[in-house]
Amino acid sequence: MTPYELYCFGESGNAYKVALFLELSGIPWTARFVDFFNGETRKPEYRSDVNEMGEAPVLVIGDRKMSQSGAILHHLGKVHPKFGPASESEEEEALRWMFFDNHKFTSYIATLRFMISITKTGETPVTEFLRGRAINSLKTVDAHLARRPFMLGERMTIADFSLCGYLFYGDELPFDLKAHAHVVAWLDRIKSMHGWKHPYDLMPRKSAS
Amino acid sequence: MTPYELYCFGESGNAYKVALFLELSGIPWTARFVDFFNGETRKPEYRSDVNEMGEAPVLVIGDRKMSQSGAILHHLGKVHPKFGPASESEEEEALRWMFFDNHKFTSYIATLRFMISITKTGETPVTEFLRGRAINSLKTVDAHLARRPFMLGERMTIADFSLCGYLFYGDELPFDLKAHAHVVAWLDRIKSMHGWKHPYDLMPRKSAS
Repeated sequence: MTPYELYCFGESGNAYKVALFLELSGIPWTARFVDFFNGETRKPEYRSDVNEMGEAPVLVIGDRKMSQSGAILHHLGKVHPKFGPASESEEEEALRWMFFDNHKFTSYIATLRFMISITKTGETPVTEFLRGRAINSLKTVDAHLARRPFMLGERMTIADFSLCGYLFYGDELPFDLKAHAHVVAWLDRIKSMHGWKHPYDLMPRKSAS
Repeated sequence: MTPYELYCFGESGNAYKVALFLELSGIPWTARFVDFFNGETRKPEYRSDVNEMGEAPVLVIGDRKMSQSGAILHHLGKVHPKFGPASESEEEEALRWMFFDNHKFTSYIATLRFMISITKTGETPVTEFLRGRAINSLKTVDAHLARRPFMLGERMTIADFSLCGYLFYGDELPFDLKAHAHVVAWLDRIKSMHGWKHPYDLMPRKSAS
């Protein structure tokens, strides 16, 4: 089997969602470093040849290039059932949480962390807006996880990979994760899975130059 | 067949995505008005009995209540194939655009329109942030639609319903939609479909009281 090739970079929690799925599933994959911080995803040739949405991750599957971590996880969950939905109703419930993640969870958390910890904007009205939204969404997920170990119940699925993507960046997260105890316990369960790695140990980063 | 019941309100483009799918498919449905502006979705009983995510739309399907417009459209596209994906690869491509919509398109457009045209915040650093993101995403969709009449090709699918949800609110949109000619032409194609209705003609609104 030709290993999957994943366009990714260490700072991308969206790429990490896919990288971690592949790693915990024991599926061979290789990383193709995306030089995001030097503008690679904004170049016309990236849009024309790799991803018209101008984003990472992109998973190369034979002669296809698939983007959007949610769509990639949905595809991988069908082909590699270890963390895939076990039934149509599980698939629908997984998609429900993955859409929530894209709309209300990763969207706010990732952008907030990017501004505060990567581009270092300092606190602004925008970070205040994003933090308020992020915390509301964390509360929704925390309440859900109060009653089950993983998002869909007893076992980890694609929905967990989607939601956890940005939450392993530790001190880079500009809010108090510990205020959400069920989320913290759930992250510990994921972290204890065989083969788990931190995003920076799983995906390449730009070396200082 | 018991008609579907849709928790919705006229101002919700996310509810409109589902309502328009049902209407254009000729599927019987009834509206259950959600009193969003008086805080119904934020009440504990709404979270416990209707949707733990505290949002509309919610589609009642027998004894199930399904939320997230993307997940609802994905489900409906399987049960009612008129606008459903015609193959697994179409399903994946539809999901890819629906995740993009939730992450980068509806998310920014809906929040911007809510602030400017509904809560009337005026221009702020947050609306400036949202507008920049919204316009970038409109450009991505415009470039995609330059080469095909609908998001997946020759016919309208769930991906179109997802992306168009907030774009029929006319003067409430606080940016120049006309700058995106392929998007405008695509909206005209949707508008010309038999049975098309404006969101305010399709879903109930709070009467002035």
